[in-house]
Amino acid sequence: MTNATQPIILTGDRTTGPLHLGHYIGSLRSRVQLQHEAKQFLLLADTQAMTDNVGRHQKVTENVVEVALDYLAVGIDPDKSTIFIQSQVPELAELTQYLLNLVTVSRLERNPTIKEEIRLRGFERDIPAGFLTYPVSQAADITAFKATLVPVGDDQQPMIEQTNELVRRFNLTVGREVLVECVAVLSHVPRLPGIDGKAKMSKSLGNAITLGATPDEISKAVHDMYTDPNHLRVSDPGQVEGNVVFMFLDAFDPDTAAVDEMKAHYRRGGLGDSVVKRRLNERLQALIAPIRERRMQFERDRAGVLEILRQGTMRAREAAGATLSEVKGALGLNYFGS
Amino acid sequence: MTNATQPIILTGDRTTGPLHLGHYIGSLRSRVQLQHEAKQFLLLADTQAMTDNVGRHQKVTENVVEVALDYLAVGIDPDKSTIFIQSQVPELAELTQYLLNLVTVSRLERNPTIKEEIRLRGFERDIPAGFLTYPVSQAADITAFKATLVPVGDDQQPMIEQTNELVRRFNLTVGREVLVECVAVLSHVPRLPGIDGKAKMSKSLGNAITLGATPDEISKAVHDMYTDPNHLRVSDPGQVEGNVVFMFLDAFDPDTAAVDEMKAHYRRGGLGDSVVKRRLNERLQALIAPIRERRMQFERDRAGVLEILRQGTMRAREAAGATLSEVKGALGLNYFGS
Repeated sequence: MTNATQPIILTGDRTTGPLHLGHYIGSLRSRVQLQHEAKQFLLLADTQAMTDNVGRHQKVTENVVEVALDYLAVGIDPDKSTIFIQSQVPELAELTQYLLNLVTVSRLERNPTIKEEIRLRGFERDIPAGFLTYPVSQAADITAFKATLVPVGDDQQPMIEQTNELVRRFNLTVGREVLVECVAVLSHVPRLPGIDGKAKMSKSLGNAITLGATPDEISKAVHDMYTDPNHLRVSDPGQVEGNVVFMFLDAFDPDTAAVDEMKAHYRRGGLGDSVVKRRLNERLQALIAPIRERRMQFERDRAGVLEILRQGTMRAREAAGATLSEVKGALGLNYFGS
Repeated sequence: MTNATQPIILTGDRTTGPLHLGHYIGSLRSRVQLQHEAKQFLLLADTQAMTDNVGRHQKVTENVVEVALDYLAVGIDPDKSTIFIQSQVPELAELTQYLLNLVTVSRLERNPTIKEEIRLRGFERDIPAGFLTYPVSQAADITAFKATLVPVGDDQQPMIEQTNELVRRFNLTVGREVLVECVAVLSHVPRLPGIDGKAKMSKSLGNAITLGATPDEISKAVHDMYTDPNHLRVSDPGQVEGNVVFMFLDAFDPDTAAVDEMKAHYRRGGLGDSVVKRRLNERLQALIAPIRERRMQFERDRAGVLEILRQGTMRAREAAGATLSEVKGALGLNYFGS
């Protein structure tokens, strides 16, 4: 069920690996809620993942189903949310092509997100054209569904500005309001660090707890977790800031009063890491167990999962096709009256 | 009828205006011959024309049928050649997207053809991303049809090199020979100047004779034609080099002996411009009359012309779709077994 006043959300993930607790806290959890309040499109961004994974296309395509399993496991309902595969919606490539004419190369090069990502990947002057232009492809993903809300991290805000610039430029060019501007929805949740305390939880850095983690994997991850390196004896005062175990408790333990009490105890000394870790381990085991269980159920029915993706992709093609039709009509590209 | 040993040709025109004698002598004439010897795809390049015609999309789309009329008028047979509209073959946009990941921005910026075109258009730093990347889109046009021969002017040779680089890069990435390299076929005919003697005949420069020109337009164009500005009196010796009338006679008068004799006479003096122009006028009237006649016939049946384009576009989608299927299969992007 949808209605005209409902917001339209476009969000998704690059399919480069299974999702982890960082994704859960940062986006998945709120998507499960939002699917009741908005028309939500969830993009399995394989095409976008290809832009910086040339030669690793197998990794990208194999993880499409993995990410879909994660979505379903956390409670994304395919009857409420449209889960679809980017590469199977050719309308997005077409729309990208028309938007590419409306932005200059130097504007793309000035995009702070792209600048940072180019630095991280060490591309320097050897930036693949597909990578430099992926914000345009992202604008096509957003505008194809006339999305009004796009959940993003603060580092992704320039992408939304870029998208809205393209929307205004397109509408101005054709002299009518065809595409729709969107609003960035910033997450209020601080980014979850990796278990090693590094800035970002990431499967490839080996510091992640995935949503399909076994009980042993969870216990081991909690055991290995970075705490306060100066907290050598139980009786020593310990530091809570930058202590990954407490950051995780803040994120995953609903009993904030109890956590605050533990923090105070830890600060004044007398509370051992093992006690805090035991509590976190219990919380994470309880959180992940049902997710892992559902994930395994879906995993046993891969044909069923593919059918969910096929149907979602059909729905996505219909929505994107309608917008593309308007776009091509506005440009006069409807020779055969379609 | 096609067979496996037949060459496959991809060629076409940006749809920014009706075609003229420069196109006739440079490409159309040989296409009429080649359609008997090769499988020929003729691209009405509206999408490519959009890359440097933002805001002038109406000019681009209106000229699609104009160029198609020119093709049919000169004798392109839609049963032998596949005439199709680029924007109506979404497979080309999809293929472009994958090829974009295989070329760097700096490689595109080094392309001499693009460099020159950027200079001509005064884009400088404000190069639209779609314009910088159009050689990749062109590579998609060529490779989608597994074209083996691509007729080009010498200034377009870098485009063919770029295409073959992408072919090799793609095949290397997927570890098999999916795309096919092509060979540039250079025209032996010198480029026809505008009637004002400027380097290039061009509708927008107002120095062209179009293929639908009326008898009066032809006569006026020949009358206005640039000759030897120092050939003031009939008795004066005149110069043949750079004399547009003689360049046109070289291109359009099959009686080369008679033309050589006129050149000698003109050089030694005693031959007036009006005599030479009269001969050229007769030749051009005779050449264009049947073309204009056929053009008018087709023009009276626009629905029929659109049906020819619709059928050609369907055939083109089939061919491009088969290649795209192989490309996506090689990248593992065939989740639904298609």
